Amino acid sequence: MYYFDKRLQYAVRVDSPDPIYARMLQQAIGGVEGEIRVCMQYFFQAWGNRAPNTKYRDMLLHTATEELGHIEMLATAVAMNLENAPTKVQEAGAADAIVGAVMGGENPRHIAEGMLHKHLLSSGMAAFPGNSDGVPFDMNHIYASGNIAADMYCNVAAEATGRTLAVRLSNATNDPGMKDMWSFLIARDTMHQQQWLAVIEELGGVEGALPIPNSFPQSEENQKFNYSFFATNRDGAPPPEGRWTAGPSLDGKGNFNVFQNEPMGQEPVLGPARPDSGAESQQIG
Amino acid sequence: MYYFDKRLQYAVRVDSPDPIYARMLQQAIGGVEGEIRVCMQYFFQAWGNRAPNTKYRDMLLHTATEELGHIEMLATAVAMNLENAPTKVQEAGAADAIVGAVMGGENPRHIAEGMLHKHLLSSGMAAFPGNSDGVPFDMNHIYASGNIAADMYCNVAAEATGRTLAVRLSNATNDPGMKDMWSFLIARDTMHQQQWLAVIEELGGVEGALPIPNSFPQSEENQKFNYSFFATNRDGAPPPEGRWTAGPSLDGKGNFNVFQNEPMGQEPVLGPARPDSGAESQQIG
Amino acid sequence: MYYFDKRLQYAVRVDSPDPIYARMLQQAIGGVEGEIRVCMQYFFQAWGNRAPNTKYRDMLLHTATEELGHIEMLATAVAMNLENAPTKVQEAGAADAIVGAVMGGENPRHIAEGMLHKHLLSSGMAAFPGNSDGVPFDMNHIYASGNIAADMYCNVAAEATGRTLAVRLSNATNDPGMKDMWSFLIARDTMHQQQWLAVIEELGGVEGALPIPNSFPQSEENQKFNYSFFATNRDGAPPPEGRWTAGPSLDGKGNFNVFQNEPMGQEPVLGPARPDSGAESQQIG
Amino acid sequence: MYYFDKRLQYAVRVDSPDPIYARMLQQAIGGVEGEIRVCMQYFFQAWGNRAPNTKYRDMLLHTATEELGHIEMLATAVAMNLENAPTKVQEAGAADAIVGAVMGGENPRHIAEGMLHKHLLSSGMAAFPGNSDGVPFDMNHIYASGNIAADMYCNVAAEATGRTLAVRLSNATNDPGMKDMWSFLIARDTMHQQQWLAVIEELGGVEGALPIPNSFPQSEENQKFNYSFFATNRDGAPPPEGRWTAGPSLDGKGNFNVFQNEPMGQEPVLGPARPDSGAESQQIG
Amino acid sequence: MYYFDKRLQYAVRVDSPDPIYARMLQQAIGGVEGEIRVCMQYFFQAWGNRAPNTKYRDMLLHTATEELGHIEMLATAVAMNLENAPTKVQEAGAADAIVGAVMGGENPRHIAEGMLHKHLLSSGMAAFPGNSDGVPFDMNHIYASGNIAADMYCNVAAEATGRTLAVRLSNATNDPGMKDMWSFLIARDTMHQQQWLAVIEELGGVEGALPIPNSFPQSEENQKFNYSFFATNRDGAPPPEGRWTAGPSLDGKGNFNVFQNEPMGQEPVLGPARPDSGAESQQIG
Amino acid sequence: MYYFDKRLQYAVRVDSPDPIYARMLQQAIGGVEGEIRVCMQYFFQAWGNRAPNTKYRDMLLHTATEELGHIEMLATAVAMNLENAPTKVQEAGAADAIVGAVMGGENPRHIAEGMLHKHLLSSGMAAFPGNSDGVPFDMNHIYASGNIAADMYCNVAAEATGRTLAVRLSNATNDPGMKDMWSFLIARDTMHQQQWLAVIEELGGVEGALPIPNSFPQSEENQKFNYSFFATNRDGAPPPEGRWTAGPSLDGKGNFNVFQNEPMGQEPVLGPARPDSGAESQQIG
Repeated sequence: MYYFDKRLQYAVRVDSPDPIYARMLQQAIGGVEGEIRVCMQYFFQAWGNRAPNTKYRDMLLHTATEELGHIEMLATAVAMNLENAPTKVQEAGAADAIVGAVMGGENPRHIAEGMLHKHLLSSGMAAFPGNSDGVPFDMNHIYASGNIAADMYCNVAAEATGRTLAVRLSNATNDPGMKDMWSFLIARDTMHQQQWLAVIEELGGVEGALPIPNSFPQSEENQKFNYSFFATNRDGAPPPEGRWTAGPSLDGKGNFNVFQNEPMGQEPVLGPARPDSGAESQQIG
Repeated sequence: MYYFDKRLQYAVRVDSPDPIYARMLQQAIGGVEGEIRVCMQYFFQAWGNRAPNTKYRDMLLHTATEELGHIEMLATAVAMNLENAPTKVQEAGAADAIVGAVMGGENPRHIAEGMLHKHLLSSGMAAFPGNSDGVPFDMNHIYASGNIAADMYCNVAAEATGRTLAVRLSNATNDPGMKDMWSFLIARDTMHQQQWLAVIEELGGVEGALPIPNSFPQSEENQKFNYSFFATNRDGAPPPEGRWTAGPSLDGKGNFNVFQNEPMGQEPVLGPARPDSGAESQQIG
Repeated sequence: MYYFDKRLQYAVRVDSPDPIYARMLQQAIGGVEGEIRVCMQYFFQAWGNRAPNTKYRDMLLHTATEELGHIEMLATAVAMNLENAPTKVQEAGAADAIVGAVMGGENPRHIAEGMLHKHLLSSGMAAFPGNSDGVPFDMNHIYASGNIAADMYCNVAAEATGRTLAVRLSNATNDPGMKDMWSFLIARDTMHQQQWLAVIEELGGVEGALPIPNSFPQSEENQKFNYSFFATNRDGAPPPEGRWTAGPSLDGKGNFNVFQNEPMGQEPVLGPARPDSGAESQQIG
Repeated sequence: MYYFDKRLQYAVRVDSPDPIYARMLQQAIGGVEGEIRVCMQYFFQAWGNRAPNTKYRDMLLHTATEELGHIEMLATAVAMNLENAPTKVQEAGAADAIVGAVMGGENPRHIAEGMLHKHLLSSGMAAFPGNSDGVPFDMNHIYASGNIAADMYCNVAAEATGRTLAVRLSNATNDPGMKDMWSFLIARDTMHQQQWLAVIEELGGVEGALPIPNSFPQSEENQKFNYSFFATNRDGAPPPEGRWTAGPSLDGKGNFNVFQNEPMGQEPVLGPARPDSGAESQQIG
Repeated sequence: MYYFDKRLQYAVRVDSPDPIYARMLQQAIGGVEGEIRVCMQYFFQAWGNRAPNTKYRDMLLHTATEELGHIEMLATAVAMNLENAPTKVQEAGAADAIVGAVMGGENPRHIAEGMLHKHLLSSGMAAFPGNSDGVPFDMNHIYASGNIAADMYCNVAAEATGRTLAVRLSNATNDPGMKDMWSFLIARDTMHQQQWLAVIEELGGVEGALPIPNSFPQSEENQKFNYSFFATNRDGAPPPEGRWTAGPSLDGKGNFNVFQNEPMGQEPVLGPARPDSGAESQQIG
Repeated sequence: MYYFDKRLQYAVRVDSPDPIYARMLQQAIGGVEGEIRVCMQYFFQAWGNRAPNTKYRDMLLHTATEELGHIEMLATAVAMNLENAPTKVQEAGAADAIVGAVMGGENPRHIAEGMLHKHLLSSGMAAFPGNSDGVPFDMNHIYASGNIAADMYCNVAAEATGRTLAVRLSNATNDPGMKDMWSFLIARDTMHQQQWLAVIEELGGVEGALPIPNSFPQSEENQKFNYSFFATNRDGAPPPEGRWTAGPSLDGKGNFNVFQNEPMGQEPVLGPARPDSGAESQQIG
């Protein structure tokens, strides 16, 4: 079960409120690279954790709980960036006349309002659980597969795209308060990338954990094609050389090679449609 | 641009058609662990690839194109498993009377029909681009971040959950034809896991690629917290020891330690609602 | 604006309530081939109709309003098929013991309950606006493009898949009441297919309406490829002959021919990633 | 920020694991009536709370944090109900032969496996953040409007549908452990319904809080129609009498009456399509 | 069944067409607070209504039918606001040169076009069934639970958020025609809030209707916790006093009190993964 | 199976990169009128094709494979239009000061960045599989019904809305490179419209293929209403005359007529709620 402290994990300060930046911050809340995703992903992985690996349930709960506080920080940052945003046309003031003239009737404040509409119209100038396009977060992005190595790579992927987003959002602002918040959150993403890879290392590293799932006997997979790079370009020219075209595989269990892809299967011909299947009569054999 | 051969990449054979298994196969077509996802993910990563890394555009196109053939194989397998599925109540025949008596009126063939409804009602006994629950694939699951290391980990995650699914589907059938198809597809997933990790190795491995993105100067992230495991349990007891609680970090750029999480930020108090914001009058300061 | 009569457009009668059939009927309510779709599609086309074609606004309103009554009929049919469905485990009665024994512990009534869960758990044994998989209807399926010929073909497509579904649902039941309802609804779909094609005929038929939109000067499209069938098989063998490979086009404005597809464009090479773009440093030129 | 205790808020015990019931429980996790919804709704309302109503931020955080523990309880209950579920066809054993004979080839264990597929194929026999149809939770269901009275009614609606679902799930099982869990969760829903209505009472009850938002001057709404029941039946017969057809309104600010709805507006005729708008030429005036 | 009159329920007039405002109006059509939602919600509640409460079927049909006319009014308003919107770059005219110079190459008309893209590109300058972000309406937002009191609170919630949105949209425009339309629609929302609460009053008010569902015997819920406010802050300090922390409950069936939340359950430990479950071998006990 | 050539099907050239136009182009990639839709629709129709109509599998594969190359062209066009888009606030330069002054603090470059956020924040200045609002493509839009005539009309509908979109996008730009790309793609849509209608012609035209499905005996549909236009306006005035109100039907199997719609069914009264159904006690008979 869970507890809260009404203070934030780390200070959130906005020196110059910027409603457009509020909108951009939503990506870090409800985008696929955002905090709702990692928070819920780690919780569901923890809740489905099985003996004898209970140590990882514990670890996941620590970090999932931390991430809940990150959503809170970002939601606070969104609201702070919206503090002085316009809610009425009348507030636009005299500047409009000039701009209106320049733009032949188009009102840029309207444009801004339009971009803010979700905040203005639906959430009362607060954060919402959607991305910067207003697309709501879809819980299908929570990966919890029941295979711990697969889950750890999903977590690395989440933190890698997450830190990339954080860097982009930090680059997109000059606000010192926001910069400071990002210096903290980017540091946390650094650690989280490390942390999930450390579990893979505990599981024996790439050699011990791969191919995922390692509980399926490799003898039952097709031995001819499990370390082959399939070339599918039309002209059959060899693909550029890379670590994956020759030499021992990373898991030490095979040797990379290149296979020029050709059809090994049949032209599929399905039986005719059945009389009562709602097909056209021409399809019914 | 692209070409086709009307034969399949690998033979698809179904010895005993099983409509319920057809439904389960849909997860490998339109599930988040499925083939539409990897196919489209690799294409979009290829199409967004930038100089000077054009070698990876080439590599991604080879594999994306291969995956398109995997969707085709699975769609064929679905249709073959549906070849003899019932389309009319009348086909249920005499067995129903017995079963109906046993079950007190519930008709198990109806149950099966209900489960098949998407195939029966919407797709004419063919595959559709959704998962085994009938939930359509949502293209938001295509990860193409513009950061090549992040993308490679997303690809490893996709192939790890994908091979896990493939193993489960192979375990769930005794059909020799289906087993043979899976021995091929599982082998391909083995290679694909290797392949994306091999790119990370080419980029310098964990030390060269992490923290992702490695183009952000780590000096600008908060140095105090970038290799700390944050403990968030209520009683403050130390978390279980792991590779991530002490010792050098995997990227060789820091040392792991444990930090007992405490609020470092303020209790956030947002300004009152504005007069025309559609709030209750009690909220307007 | 709108009015109602609390009687149904056509009688809905269920002789033998069947909860599984209730679930199947949902496809005709909230499936992409269902009645919510056509109802809302015709309304939005009507509401966006422009002078001087106001006659079609009128026509669309007549039929949209009719379709609203079809949703009502089907929702009533769903509820009637659920009249005697079990809501408590205890109702399953003695038959369970036998079946349980046969099935080694699996309870088929549970299976049925599981399939009904949306009706049992969420809607109180009534219809809901989703399909037979429980996937809610997504209004993105409403096509109203502002081009009347495009919209009419969208409507034909909707009524063609709709009548196909109706035939499948009629085939899937032996209930005389349900059969009678379908004889009515299938007849209406026959008319609606005709009706939208009749608008195309009023617009001059295929010759007058195509290519859609016909307001774009065909002289501005690439004259070399606008009536060519592009063959994309790898070996370059000619495709099977069809009405579309030779002879005058259907719109009378060109002649069909076959073009063996070859790259006419460049290998695309995008510029390197920018320094602050969140890419890996290896991607930054 | 947040903390956890690795013990559950209340004991979760499953005496007879039932995989179908596991699937039904998902509705209480990821259904629109479920716990993810209330948890996230209360958090987002708290995080957007504004001075001078900070007392409600505090109250919302208490209950949102409690609800997070409810998701955890239910996720645990799902996993426990799946403990002995079959993962391989071979486990079905001898009973199948008999049942298969009875059912003419249909294998009921397959049916169960099909229903479980999301747990079997995707989550490794653990809970996932979707409903009992496998439809992922969509964060658009989080209501946080910025108007505190509107939010409280949204919360009452959530707890009312939530307790209705809880009662249905309790009725659907005979397992004593599950019954005990529900006796706790149903009690909590009772309190939560009270709690949000108590806020309305603090705001002055229906008279003080309505019409929502009460900050809009009612003098600016059309005085002729703000307490009128609009009758829209075709024949114009008076609607049945109810509390809403006559007498003082609940907010004490008007008197109910009945208005026979008639068009007060024009037949809308929109201007013709513009020349370059992609319409058919017949639509361009 | 249903009828239409081609005139609008209330006059829709736009004095100064504003394409950005058209986009904002979409929130009132296809947003979760919008008219499609209430229309369809009331229809589905009506269609699932059961004896002996047929009076409420009648009432719901009256209002659902009214709401259909509101969608029509708003769709008309959207199209009218788009009457003079640009469809071609060339129309932008000479002003662009000036603005372009000011903005260093950024073209504000392009920005506006970008924002309008859904109207420009997909709907031919007419309304579509999505919100102001272009997110299509998802029918999962239709609440029809089968419990009449729960449904009425869902309806109050819908009209409360709906009127809040209407007020915000009215505040966001100075157009006299639009203001007049809102004065009508805001008045209707006032009535609809009253109307659904009046049903609760007919059902005996909070005391008669709560806890919802009132058909579940409260003796079967945990008596210790059904009127307790659970405090979940970490330090255990008492929460702020409110109507919900002490005194008789609103339904007159209990007394509010405060309970300091502590784990009453176990640390959950799930059994190990099964051999064929696709887990890592390290997870298999 | 499939092959690629790394060159594009047709040259893609952007003379003046325009980030807003990049965003608009997304509609042609991931909009419902876009290329992902037709590509996947034709593939799934091909993969579900049944004997003896294998000629159409071949035809569909040719065109599906062509469409994959169109996604690639458009994805390339998006990336090229984003080549010089700003990624940092600092790049905005001196012009901002002027504009900021004019606009009273609102920064138009911020507005542009906000609009670009998906490209800037999530995809690293490359295309993504969503529409111009950032809404991801939903595979439910793939129509493959198993009825070949229904599918062909779905394809005509897709190409009609697709060419309409293409014309609008061509009209929205003055860039010669983009104009040239559109002249090619618009030509292809012309052919594709023809091609699917040519299949209908091969099936016997409207007379041979309609009503769809033509395998259902028309004698089993209600003969009274299958060629009647139902008038649903309240006052019963005859609808405007059209091709569909009188004369022989297009399929030559009936005669159009007008039927004034009146209720032919009952007022539906459903049985009371069951005791354990979670309804209010007032609903339980």
